[in-house]
Amino acid sequence: MKMKDLGEFGFIDRIAPLCKINSGDVIRGIGDDCSVVSLSPDLYLLVTTDLLIERVHFLVDWQSAHTLGGKALAVNLSDIAACGGIPRDAFVSIAVPDRLNVDWLEDFYRGMADLADKFKVNILGGDTTRSLTDLVINVVVTGFSNPKETLFRNEAQPEDIIAVSGPLGNSAAGLELLLNPRPIPDTIASPLIYAHISPRPHLTEGRTLAKSHACNAAIDISDGLSSDLGHVCKQSGVGAIIFEEKLPLSEPLIKLARELTVDPLDWVLNGGEDYVLLASIRPDQLTDVMRAAASDGWELIEIGKFVSTPGIKLVRASGETTAIVPRGWDHFKY
Amino acid sequence: MKMKDLGEFGFIDRIAPLCKINSGDVIRGIGDDCSVVSLSPDLYLLVTTDLLIERVHFLVDWQSAHTLGGKALAVNLSDIAACGGIPRDAFVSIAVPDRLNVDWLEDFYRGMADLADKFKVNILGGDTTRSLTDLVINVVVTGFSNPKETLFRNEAQPEDIIAVSGPLGNSAAGLELLLNPRPIPDTIASPLIYAHISPRPHLTEGRTLAKSHACNAAIDISDGLSSDLGHVCKQSGVGAIIFEEKLPLSEPLIKLARELTVDPLDWVLNGGEDYVLLASIRPDQLTDVMRAAASDGWELIEIGKFVSTPGIKLVRASGETTAIVPRGWDHFKY
Repeated sequence: MKMKDLGEFGFIDRIAPLCKINSGDVIRGIGDDCSVVSLSPDLYLLVTTDLLIERVHFLVDWQSAHTLGGKALAVNLSDIAACGGIPRDAFVSIAVPDRLNVDWLEDFYRGMADLADKFKVNILGGDTTRSLTDLVINVVVTGFSNPKETLFRNEAQPEDIIAVSGPLGNSAAGLELLLNPRPIPDTIASPLIYAHISPRPHLTEGRTLAKSHACNAAIDISDGLSSDLGHVCKQSGVGAIIFEEKLPLSEPLIKLARELTVDPLDWVLNGGEDYVLLASIRPDQLTDVMRAAASDGWELIEIGKFVSTPGIKLVRASGETTAIVPRGWDHFKY
Repeated sequence: MKMKDLGEFGFIDRIAPLCKINSGDVIRGIGDDCSVVSLSPDLYLLVTTDLLIERVHFLVDWQSAHTLGGKALAVNLSDIAACGGIPRDAFVSIAVPDRLNVDWLEDFYRGMADLADKFKVNILGGDTTRSLTDLVINVVVTGFSNPKETLFRNEAQPEDIIAVSGPLGNSAAGLELLLNPRPIPDTIASPLIYAHISPRPHLTEGRTLAKSHACNAAIDISDGLSSDLGHVCKQSGVGAIIFEEKLPLSEPLIKLARELTVDPLDWVLNGGEDYVLLASIRPDQLTDVMRAAASDGWELIEIGKFVSTPGIKLVRASGETTAIVPRGWDHFKY
């Protein structure tokens, strides 16, 4: 069987039973944003890792080395954010083709270090080696969380409110402009491209949600809303209804869709790489959490609710209801 | 400047100052076998990572997927061993080209899981993605150590005995046979090739050394004796003398060198990937440590001593003394 027939998530289901050996203190293994291990009654260790491959995940020409370094770290910090954790240390493995020189690589590290500095994260080690073709970047981030304030994917409850911590679809629209450049005004193109090449990890947002004790589940939107909401639904044994009218679309996204005469809904539902958080909030505490978010400087946006019937439904602006099939990014299937 | 002019270790020296940001509990960052972070007065967290790239570090045809999976984990466990630690969890990122199918990948994971099982290590997560060309494997292992029993590279003392936990050069000789196949009897070729494709992490050996409280420094021999001993010397501010007659050469290695009419010394000094431990032992406790090793089922082999004068010297069997220039593996320089 080929990986493209099974897909990343099918493969993970297949190998997961092999992998848990000494499971005493393991709270979460393969299949959540982070693995979670209990170090003491008061402390969980979180570990997350992301592998980025040139020509599969990015092109070198799309951004400066500095920006790419920042993104390689940011996508891992986003996983820590989704667990409500505090990041601690990063470990960077990089395989470098001969065409990239020392200055490029130093700028890449500087980009990582600048973002690391914002969140008081160390870059403690890793491995630097040569690549014959593509640039390869693997970043691991460790973090800590309080067991009583750790967020998982699989505890969403029916009637919980589905909310997100920022706009959706910007990154996908930015990617579209990188892949197919068009003469679009800078005021539209720049913020979308920036959203793709320089995502901000929602660590503050994750901490607000974790501290609220009103968030039953969370995930970061890396594969796409339909796919990541699908993970939460599948792992929690629930379904979801989302409302098109409530989906947060940015002005540049709406304007780009108008310029290209396309429906932005595909970017919003299936685009991926927005790195905002999706949260499952107890309905009676929604206003409290919204107030806490505002007090921490961000906006929690309600987009739907979890239900006991499986499947994801979208209520269109027209009132029509359609079923959503998770089809966010799977590198093996595209 | 090109990476081949600076080399991996030159590059690490250049970026290290950028990387330590929140250094309160950081015991070791970039530049030791593992990074070491203090979690409590009784507990250090160890993290190590290794990136393996097809055609740079290995060819797929050299071994089964099962063996390659085992080696990818073993090289990281070896770093934990060098710190005297106990490994805990592994995280595997893999980028898979289309030519490798699901069965291959499952066999790879099974190879990792079989080795993980021996040392009660979980495989808790990672990232699986697609590669357009080479297979890419990044493994991270976390472990724990007792602060009073943690081994570093940089605390070797003049007059300490240099000892190793197993034979040297087998892996390099095996690699030579993989790169340039020759009609060599199986009894010679097999153990050498096996040493290269299926190294055993010296975790038991590391624990014996750590518990002895007589080992001032340790490193695993991954880049080669000259290079790894060079790291210990440089970081400890000492020099070393090693004795050719004391270097542990296996029977198959000696026989292969005879068959090929070459001096095996180059494999032994510069070959790399033996994954035995090199230890700096207090001279008055050497016999105690040797006894402890024997009682734990392995042999500690004295090969030389540290001295206060910088540089590494080799006393040849002839009595002649020559200077050794560290020239183990640097992927950027070869």
